[in-house]
Amino acid sequence: MDFAPSPRAADLTARVRQFLDERIEPVEGELVADIEARRARGEDSWAVDPRIEELRAAARAEGLWNLFLPAGHEGPYAAKFGTDGGTGLTNLDYAPVAEQMGRSFMAPLIFNCNAPDTGNMEVLLKYGSQEQKDTWLEPLLDGRIRSTFLMTEPAVASSDATNMAATAAVDGDEVVLNGRKWWSSGAGHPDCKVGIYMAVTDPNADRHHRHSMVVVPMDHPGVKVERMLSTLGQFDEPLGHGEVSLTDVRLPVDHIIGGPGRAFEIAQGRLGPGRVHHCMRLIGLSEKALELALERSTTRVAFGKPLANLGGNREKLAKARIAINQARLHVLHAAWKLDTFGTAGALSEVAEIKAAVPSMACEVIDLAIQLHGGGGTGPDFPLAAAYAGARSLRLADGPDEVHLGVIGRIMLAPYAARAAQRAGQSSGGVAR
Amino acid sequence: MDFAPSPRAADLTARVRQFLDERIEPVEGELVADIEARRARGEDSWAVDPRIEELRAAARAEGLWNLFLPAGHEGPYAAKFGTDGGTGLTNLDYAPVAEQMGRSFMAPLIFNCNAPDTGNMEVLLKYGSQEQKDTWLEPLLDGRIRSTFLMTEPAVASSDATNMAATAAVDGDEVVLNGRKWWSSGAGHPDCKVGIYMAVTDPNADRHHRHSMVVVPMDHPGVKVERMLSTLGQFDEPLGHGEVSLTDVRLPVDHIIGGPGRAFEIAQGRLGPGRVHHCMRLIGLSEKALELALERSTTRVAFGKPLANLGGNREKLAKARIAINQARLHVLHAAWKLDTFGTAGALSEVAEIKAAVPSMACEVIDLAIQLHGGGGTGPDFPLAAAYAGARSLRLADGPDEVHLGVIGRIMLAPYAARAAQRAGQSSGGVAR
Amino acid sequence: MDFAPSPRAADLTARVRQFLDERIEPVEGELVADIEARRARGEDSWAVDPRIEELRAAARAEGLWNLFLPAGHEGPYAAKFGTDGGTGLTNLDYAPVAEQMGRSFMAPLIFNCNAPDTGNMEVLLKYGSQEQKDTWLEPLLDGRIRSTFLMTEPAVASSDATNMAATAAVDGDEVVLNGRKWWSSGAGHPDCKVGIYMAVTDPNADRHHRHSMVVVPMDHPGVKVERMLSTLGQFDEPLGHGEVSLTDVRLPVDHIIGGPGRAFEIAQGRLGPGRVHHCMRLIGLSEKALELALERSTTRVAFGKPLANLGGNREKLAKARIAINQARLHVLHAAWKLDTFGTAGALSEVAEIKAAVPSMACEVIDLAIQLHGGGGTGPDFPLAAAYAGARSLRLADGPDEVHLGVIGRIMLAPYAARAAQRAGQSSGGVAR
Amino acid sequence: MDFAPSPRAADLTARVRQFLDERIEPVEGELVADIEARRARGEDSWAVDPRIEELRAAARAEGLWNLFLPAGHEGPYAAKFGTDGGTGLTNLDYAPVAEQMGRSFMAPLIFNCNAPDTGNMEVLLKYGSQEQKDTWLEPLLDGRIRSTFLMTEPAVASSDATNMAATAAVDGDEVVLNGRKWWSSGAGHPDCKVGIYMAVTDPNADRHHRHSMVVVPMDHPGVKVERMLSTLGQFDEPLGHGEVSLTDVRLPVDHIIGGPGRAFEIAQGRLGPGRVHHCMRLIGLSEKALELALERSTTRVAFGKPLANLGGNREKLAKARIAINQARLHVLHAAWKLDTFGTAGALSEVAEIKAAVPSMACEVIDLAIQLHGGGGTGPDFPLAAAYAGARSLRLADGPDEVHLGVIGRIMLAPYAARAAQRAGQSSGGVAR
Repeated sequence: MDFAPSPRAADLTARVRQFLDERIEPVEGELVADIEARRARGEDSWAVDPRIEELRAAARAEGLWNLFLPAGHEGPYAAKFGTDGGTGLTNLDYAPVAEQMGRSFMAPLIFNCNAPDTGNMEVLLKYGSQEQKDTWLEPLLDGRIRSTFLMTEPAVASSDATNMAATAAVDGDEVVLNGRKWWSSGAGHPDCKVGIYMAVTDPNADRHHRHSMVVVPMDHPGVKVERMLSTLGQFDEPLGHGEVSLTDVRLPVDHIIGGPGRAFEIAQGRLGPGRVHHCMRLIGLSEKALELALERSTTRVAFGKPLANLGGNREKLAKARIAINQARLHVLHAAWKLDTFGTAGALSEVAEIKAAVPSMACEVIDLAIQLHGGGGTGPDFPLAAAYAGARSLRLADGPDEVHLGVIGRIMLAPYAARAAQRAGQSSGGVAR
Repeated sequence: MDFAPSPRAADLTARVRQFLDERIEPVEGELVADIEARRARGEDSWAVDPRIEELRAAARAEGLWNLFLPAGHEGPYAAKFGTDGGTGLTNLDYAPVAEQMGRSFMAPLIFNCNAPDTGNMEVLLKYGSQEQKDTWLEPLLDGRIRSTFLMTEPAVASSDATNMAATAAVDGDEVVLNGRKWWSSGAGHPDCKVGIYMAVTDPNADRHHRHSMVVVPMDHPGVKVERMLSTLGQFDEPLGHGEVSLTDVRLPVDHIIGGPGRAFEIAQGRLGPGRVHHCMRLIGLSEKALELALERSTTRVAFGKPLANLGGNREKLAKARIAINQARLHVLHAAWKLDTFGTAGALSEVAEIKAAVPSMACEVIDLAIQLHGGGGTGPDFPLAAAYAGARSLRLADGPDEVHLGVIGRIMLAPYAARAAQRAGQSSGGVAR
Repeated sequence: MDFAPSPRAADLTARVRQFLDERIEPVEGELVADIEARRARGEDSWAVDPRIEELRAAARAEGLWNLFLPAGHEGPYAAKFGTDGGTGLTNLDYAPVAEQMGRSFMAPLIFNCNAPDTGNMEVLLKYGSQEQKDTWLEPLLDGRIRSTFLMTEPAVASSDATNMAATAAVDGDEVVLNGRKWWSSGAGHPDCKVGIYMAVTDPNADRHHRHSMVVVPMDHPGVKVERMLSTLGQFDEPLGHGEVSLTDVRLPVDHIIGGPGRAFEIAQGRLGPGRVHHCMRLIGLSEKALELALERSTTRVAFGKPLANLGGNREKLAKARIAINQARLHVLHAAWKLDTFGTAGALSEVAEIKAAVPSMACEVIDLAIQLHGGGGTGPDFPLAAAYAGARSLRLADGPDEVHLGVIGRIMLAPYAARAAQRAGQSSGGVAR
Repeated sequence: MDFAPSPRAADLTARVRQFLDERIEPVEGELVADIEARRARGEDSWAVDPRIEELRAAARAEGLWNLFLPAGHEGPYAAKFGTDGGTGLTNLDYAPVAEQMGRSFMAPLIFNCNAPDTGNMEVLLKYGSQEQKDTWLEPLLDGRIRSTFLMTEPAVASSDATNMAATAAVDGDEVVLNGRKWWSSGAGHPDCKVGIYMAVTDPNADRHHRHSMVVVPMDHPGVKVERMLSTLGQFDEPLGHGEVSLTDVRLPVDHIIGGPGRAFEIAQGRLGPGRVHHCMRLIGLSEKALELALERSTTRVAFGKPLANLGGNREKLAKARIAINQARLHVLHAAWKLDTFGTAGALSEVAEIKAAVPSMACEVIDLAIQLHGGGGTGPDFPLAAAYAGARSLRLADGPDEVHLGVIGRIMLAPYAARAAQRAGQSSGGVAR
C-alpha cells in the first residue's frame, strides 16, 4: 500500500494546476461575468469566446489535452492524446489531474476533458465504426467539434432505463428516431455537431437488448434543440443543458453504434470511468470552495473577531476538511479498483462514490456560501454555480438513491443467499 | 391551551387560500415563464405585468390587503387595512394567513404583504413624521408605490451591525448620505420610489446610538441602482435584490426617521414581527414543496413501483411531515409569545424560529427536488426558486449562526451568573 | 389558539415540580447509587426500598397520584385519582405534568404514573370485568401491587404484531398460555403480581381478531421470569425489564380481557395515550439533560474558557434548545388532537411524536454526555441511564421506522387514490 | 499509489482473522456471559479466566503477539515481538491487523495488543531506563503483568492537560505523588501491577515542562483503586476503567520516566500511533456491527418482508458501507502519513481520524442496534457493549471537539498568516 502518486500523475497534476493558476483562474471571473452580461442584455450568451479558444490552443500546445483517455487506448488515435508518447492514463493516475480541473468551470473544456464529450469519445473509440471514428471522433479529439448525449427523458423516471420512451426503429436500411430528451449537456455550444442518442429499437427483446445508441448529426432535419435548461438558475454556458426533440429523423442504419440492441452493453462500458470523472472533479470543486471559505473566515470580521473564531465555524471547517479528505481517498480507491479489477470488480466502489461525493460537495459548498453571507449566494463568487453543479450531480448519473440501491444489493446478496439456503427458498426476496 | 385558530384567523386563512387556489395558482407558472422568457430575450423582465396588477386589485377588493399590520395600529390608516373594521391582526392570527401566502412567490405582493414593504410600512407607521406618512406610507398602503431597505453592505460582515461603513452625516439642516448597499430587496420594481437607509451618523456615540434611518427618494440625485443581483441564479422579479450606491446624497434633515441616532431602536421594533413573517411564509412554501413531492412520488414509476415505494423515500417524506409540523407549531408559539410578552419577552423564541425554519425549509425543498429528478432543478417546477428563496433566508435577516448565538446567550446567562457568583467573579466571561 | 396552560394543568405541574425538587431530586442520586452498590455486591438490587415507599405515601397524601387517568373516567374508581374531585385530566393537561415526572427515573413510580402500570390500568378500567377490576385494578390504583405487559417476543420481529408466536388457546372453560415474552417492563419489582399477556387465540381468524389479552397472575404455575434484561447496560431497578416464559399456564377463560379475539381493539385503545406519555416524559428528561449541560458548560474551564465558549458548543446547546421546544409543542399538539378528535383523528400526530421525540432526546442527552467528558458516560451523572432510556424508546413502542411508515401511509393515501383514479386502477399500490 | 496491502500485512491480517474466527469468536459470547453472570451473583467478575489465558498462550505460540510495536524497535526486546524476525510493523502494515482485532472485545488482550498496555510499553521502550525496562517492560511484553495509565482527573477538564491538578513533587531523591485519577483503563485486572502516572512537578515551569511521568507500582502504599467505573453501563472486564487515588505516595526519584518535566514530550510520542490503534480497531468493530446488521436484515421478517426490504433500511445499510469504507481509507492514509512524515507531519491526519472515526462507529453500531430491535440493546448481542466502547472513544483520547480544533488551527494557520501580513498585524488572532 502506498499513497504517493506516480511520478507521471504528480507531474501532470502539477502542470495542470500551474496552467489553472496562471492562465485560467486570473481570467475566469471575467469570462463568466461577460457571459452573464451578454445574457442580461439579451445577447447570445452561447457564442464562442475567442479567449477560451486561445486557452484551448495553449493547453493543447503544452500537451495538456485529452488526458481523460484511459490506459489501453494506444491505437491510431494515440497521437491525439496529450499524454507524452500517447499512452493513456490509468484511472488512478487521471484522478488527481481531474481533481485539479474540477476547481474551475472552464478548465475541463479547455483541456478537452469535459463531459459529455469524454464519454462520447470513449464510446466511439471502443464501439464506433471506422467511418464514425473518421467523421466524429477525430474532430472531437481535435476539439474542432463538440457533442451531446441524448438519454434522459422528461416524461419518465429515467433513473430506470427500461422506462425509456424514445424510439430508434429500424426501417430497411434506415433507422427512424422519434423522442424527446433533456438534460442533454453540451447541446448549447455552437460547435455541438453530433449527439449520441439512446432509444428503444425492439420493445420485445429482453431488457438488455431493447435499446440502441445512434450517432445523430445535430443539423439533421427533425433534430431540434427546443430550449436550453437552467439548473438551479445556472445555464452553464458555453456548454449548457438542452431539451432536444427528434421527429422522424431518418438516418442510414449504420449510424447505430455497434449495431441494433447494444446500447446497454455500451452504456455499461461508458459509465464506469465517466462516473468516476465527475467525482474526481467534485473533489477539486469542494477543495476550491473550502479554500474560499478559509480565506473568507480569516479576512471577514464580525463582533470583533475573524469569522473563523466565531461560533462553530472552526469545527464546521474542520469537518469539511475531513469530508473532502475521506471522499478523495474513496475516489482514488475506486479508481484503483476499476484499474485493477475492471468495471465488474468495482461496481460497489463506483456506486459508493457516486452516492457519497456529490452530497459531500453540496455540504462543503453550502458551508462556503454561508460563510460568505449574502454575497455567497450572488454572482460575485463562484459558489452559487458550484452548488448548482454539485447538486445536479446528485441526479445526473442516476439519483443517489439508485446508487445506494446498488450498494445494498451487492452487500446483501451473500447474506440473502445464505438466508434462503437455510430456509430452503430462492434468494430472490432480498436481493430484489 | 388550545390549538384551534380563532374564527377570524380561520376565515382569513380560508379566503386567502381560496384566492390563491382559484386566482393565483392557475396563472403563476405562466407569469414566471413569461418573465424568464423576457429575460432570455434581453427584454425588460422587470416591467409591470398588467395581470399582476389585476390580481392586486381583486385581492384589495376582497379585503385581502395589508393583512400584515399587527393589532394595535387602529389609527387613521386603519381604513387601509383589509381586515374588516380596520383592526390589525395579532401575530398569532396573521401566522396561518401568511403561511398560505408563502405557497406562492407572487402572493405576498398581490396581497400587499411582501417584504420589505411590510417592515418599511411598520417603521413609518410607528416612527415616521406626519409628512413621511403622507408622502410615503399612504401610497405604500395603497400599493401605488413600492420600497426597498438599504442596510446590508458588500464590504463588511453585516451580521454585526456595528461594522456598517455607510454614512448619514448631519450637515446643518441637511443629511448627507454616502455608502454602498446590496441585497436591497424590492429595488428592481419600477414602482420602487423610496428606500429606508441605515447608516452611521455619529461614530463616537455609544454603539446603540451611532446610526440613523433615513427616508431616501430613489430618484434623488446620487442614488443609483448599480445592478440587480441573482440569488442562487434567481432574480426574483418583479421585486428583486439590488446593489445601490449613494454618493453625496443630500436630503433635508427631517428625512431622518425619528431623528438622528435612533436606528437601532427602530430596527429592534422592525425586526421582531418582520422576522416572524418570513418564517410563516416558509412554512407554507415547505408545505407546497411537500405536496409536490407527494404528488410526484405517487405518479412517477421506476423499477415497477411509484417512487413513494422505493428505498427510503417514504421515510424521508414522513420526516419532512414531522419537520414542517414542528416548525409550524414553533412559529405559532413564537407569534403568541410576541403578542403576549412583547419583543423583549420573545427574544429567544424569535431567534429560535429564525435559526430553525429556513434550514428546515431547505431540507424539505431539497427532498422535493430530488424526487423530481433533473426536472426538479430546472425551470418547469417552482422548486429551484423555492430553494433559492429558503436558502437566502438562512442569511437574509442575519445568518443562522447569529440567531443561535442569541439563543445561547439568553439560555446561558443565568447559569453563567450563578457560576460567576460562586466564583466571586463577574459573569462577563460566558455571556459574551 | 392559546399556548397558556389551563389553571389546573399549571397548578398540578407546579406541585409535581415542587415535589420533585424538594423531595425526590435531593435523594435520587443516593437511591440509585445504593441500588448499584447492592448489585455490585451481589445483593438483591430489586428489593423494595423503604425510602421510595415513603415518597410514594407522601405523593399520594398530596394528591399527586394516578394523575395519568384521562378525562372521562369518572366512575367508581374516580376517588382513587389524585386529581381533586376525581375528574381525570385531558391529555393536554396531563402533558406538562408528565413532562416534570420525566425529569427523574423514580418519579413516575412515586406518583403511581409509571409504565406499564398506567397502560395496564387503563385497559382494565376500559375493558376489564368487574372481577378483574376488583382483583387487579383496585390494588394497582392503590399502588399495593405492580404489573407487567407481556407482548414483545424474542424470536420474531414484534414490530409486526401478526408475527406473534405465543398462544392463548381456549380449551373448554380454560385458556392455555404458551409463549416466551421479553422486554416485559415492571417484571423485576417484588410487587409485580399481574401481567397482561397478548397472544394468538385463533390463527385462522382475520388478522385483527386472532389475538387475545389475558390477565395472568405472575405467581401462577408455569409463569417464570427467566431473567432480567439490561438495556444498554442499565437494569432500571426497581421495575426492570424481564424475559418471561409461560408454559402450559391454565387459567379460567374469564381471564381473557373482554373475551377472545379482542386484543387488537384493546391495544389500539391502550396505545394512543400511553404512547404520548412516553414522549411527554422524554421532553422532561431532555430538558433535565440540557440543564445539566448548561451547568457544566458554565462551570468547567478548558483552555482558559468555560466550555460554553469553546468551539461550537454554544451553537449545539442552542440547537438542543430548539429541538426540545419544537418537540414539546409537537407533543402538546398531539395531545390536543387526541383529546379533540380521538385516537382515530390523531393517528399521524401520535406516530409523528413517537418517531421524532425519542431520537431528539437521544441527541440532546448525547450532547450533555459529551460536555461532561468521561464522567458523562459513567455512574456519577444520570446521563448514561437517561441515554439508555431514550434510546430504548426508539424501539419500545414500535421502532421509529414503523411510525414513519404510518405517517407516510396516511399522508400518501389521498395522493395515491387520485393517482389510481387517474390511471383507472385500484390505489393499493402506494398505500401498501 | 497502490491500495493492495503488503504481503506481510496480508499474511498477518489473515492469520489474526483466522485465529479470531476459529478460536475466539466461538467462545467469546460465553466468556462475556460468564463474566456478567458472576457480576450478577456478586462474585468477582474481574478474576482471571483460564480460558482467556489459554487463548493468550495459543496466540503467542502462533507468533500473533505484540504485533503493535512499530518498525524501528529492533533492539534487545525484538525477540519479544511476534512478528517474524523481530522487526516491528509500520503503522500502515499494522492497521489491517488491528482492524481484525477490533472485531472482538477480547482479542486485543489475547494478542497482547490492548490499550493502555501498548502505549505504556512504547513509552518504556522509548524513554524508560534499563531498570524500568527490566522491571516492567519485560513482563508486560511477556504478558505476565498488565498496566494502567493514570492521566485523566475527575475534577478538571482533562481535555486541556494544563488543567491537571495531581502532583509529582520532587523531594530530595524521592518523588511524592498526590492526586486522583479516573478512567484509568486496565486498573481492574488482577495482574495490573504498574501504572504510568502523569502529574505536575513544577508549576512554574513553562507549560510544556511542568509535568512528569512516573512509574508507579500499583501495590505501593498510598495507591488505591477506589472503584471500577462503568461506561454506559459496561464494566469492560477483565480490564475495566478505574478511579485511583494516590496519597503521599513516595517513590525513588528514578521512577520518573526520562527525568522530571518530560511528560509532554513523552505524551506526544505516545499519542501518535496509540491514537491510530483505537481508530483501526473501531473500523473492525464497525465492520462487525454491519455484518450483524446484514445478517439480521436478511433473516428477520416483518410485514411479510425481510427487514432489508423495509423502509429506508437498505439505504441506511448502504450509507454504513460508505462510511466504513471512507473511514478505513482515512485511517490507512493517516498511518501512511505517520510512517512517511512522522508525528509532526501527520498532525492533521491523526486528529482527523480521531474526530471522525468514533462517531462513524457509533452511527453504524446504532443502526445495527435499531435493526436488532429491543434485543439490540440487551445482553444477547455484543452491540450495547460495542456502542459503549465506540462512544467512550469520542472522549477517551480527547473529545472530538479538541481534535476538530487542531484540524482547524492547522488549516487556518497559513490563511491567518496571510491575512495578518496584509493587515500588517501579528497572526495571533485566528490561529489561537
